[in-house]
Amino acid sequence: MKIGVLGTGMVGTTIGSKLVALGHEVKLGSRTADNPKAVQWVAAAGGRASTGTFAESARHGEIVFNCTNGGASLDALAAAGADALADKVLVDLANPLDFSRGAPPTLFVGNDDSLGERIQRAFPRTRVVKTLNTVNCNVMVDPGRVPGPHTVFVSGNDPGAKATVIELLRGGFGHGDVIDLGDITTARGTEAWLHLWLRLWGVLRTPDFGIQVVRSRA
Amino acid sequence: MKIGVLGTGMVGTTIGSKLVALGHEVKLGSRTADNPKAVQWVAAAGGRASTGTFAESARHGEIVFNCTNGGASLDALAAAGADALADKVLVDLANPLDFSRGAPPTLFVGNDDSLGERIQRAFPRTRVVKTLNTVNCNVMVDPGRVPGPHTVFVSGNDPGAKATVIELLRGGFGHGDVIDLGDITTARGTEAWLHLWLRLWGVLRTPDFGIQVVRSRA
Repeated sequence: MKIGVLGTGMVGTTIGSKLVALGHEVKLGSRTADNPKAVQWVAAAGGRASTGTFAESARHGEIVFNCTNGGASLDALAAAGADALADKVLVDLANPLDFSRGAPPTLFVGNDDSLGERIQRAFPRTRVVKTLNTVNCNVMVDPGRVPGPHTVFVSGNDPGAKATVIELLRGGFGHGDVIDLGDITTARGTEAWLHLWLRLWGVLRTPDFGIQVVRSRA
Repeated sequence: MKIGVLGTGMVGTTIGSKLVALGHEVKLGSRTADNPKAVQWVAAAGGRASTGTFAESARHGEIVFNCTNGGASLDALAAAGADALADKVLVDLANPLDFSRGAPPTLFVGNDDSLGERIQRAFPRTRVVKTLNTVNCNVMVDPGRVPGPHTVFVSGNDPGAKATVIELLRGGFGHGDVIDLGDITTARGTEAWLHLWLRLWGVLRTPDFGIQVVRSRA
């Protein structure tokens, strides 16, 4: 499949490399087509990898991943363009982290909003699915780094888009336990989880952890 | 041990009954000493159970549990009195739920605060430990309702107070996995978790679930 990955940081290159390894044609998008990190990534990732602007990456993808920093996501998606993103599944991995007030970061959305919703509101023709933002990017693509079953979540308004993403999470990335939380407003739940994730990171001294939702198997 | 339990709702009576069953002398506190729910609870809970005002309950307890609704907690604690609570361990189980904007509720604290901190600021001589607010009250006192290991958390500024509470969580209530997140500001993490907890409740259709923090056992 042709997949656009927006963002050339740790998350973007990690997701991009995994998708290439799974056999997909991945175009890593950034503000400028000759972004050195993107060029370096293409050299390492091989023949199915390419680079381009946000707009070129979005046009390339049948599915598009938002791997930009939360604070930059709306600008990056605007640069990608509403037309290029129209009708596509946009997999939103970003968190609304606010680093302006020191460590640990806090969130720039309040209790009644989420970055996932902001993106869905700004791009109403795009089918936004929030997922994987509850774990570190290495755990996103390699759940086995965490020793034991653990849970990831999807939030989105479009059932078909969520089915596509769940298939990729299970069959592609190897996540054994995926919970569909409901519509995109449920992204408030997984984004607010960052408050606890950040504190756990501080205590556990590793980002390689996850949570298993433990419940009765009815 | 003599324990004060503030609040006569589901959480207060559930916690109170468990503490009585563990052999403690529990005084359930409410706004008025003759609260019918408290009187009914005493009749059912037996000889080590008694009822009183918030102030009487707080004075009785060597440890005091805040089991009031989050929105009423500061008023209830003010009624209990700063002197009655001075130097005592206050186990804060409440969540800052805001039901004013429909279902699911949201939180009345922002990203940079928590109810636990508000209580600690209002009662600086009291040793506040936030815990168990991440699970339903039945799971608080009976972790085995959830089939499999799962994690609870403590937050607080006083290491001795946290040690006392952890001992009660492990030896009394039977929680096998307790993570000390750090100071009382880490209550932001467990309170913000409610956003995800509420959505999971909606999907799982039972409040009998927990989360296990899955990490490497170094």
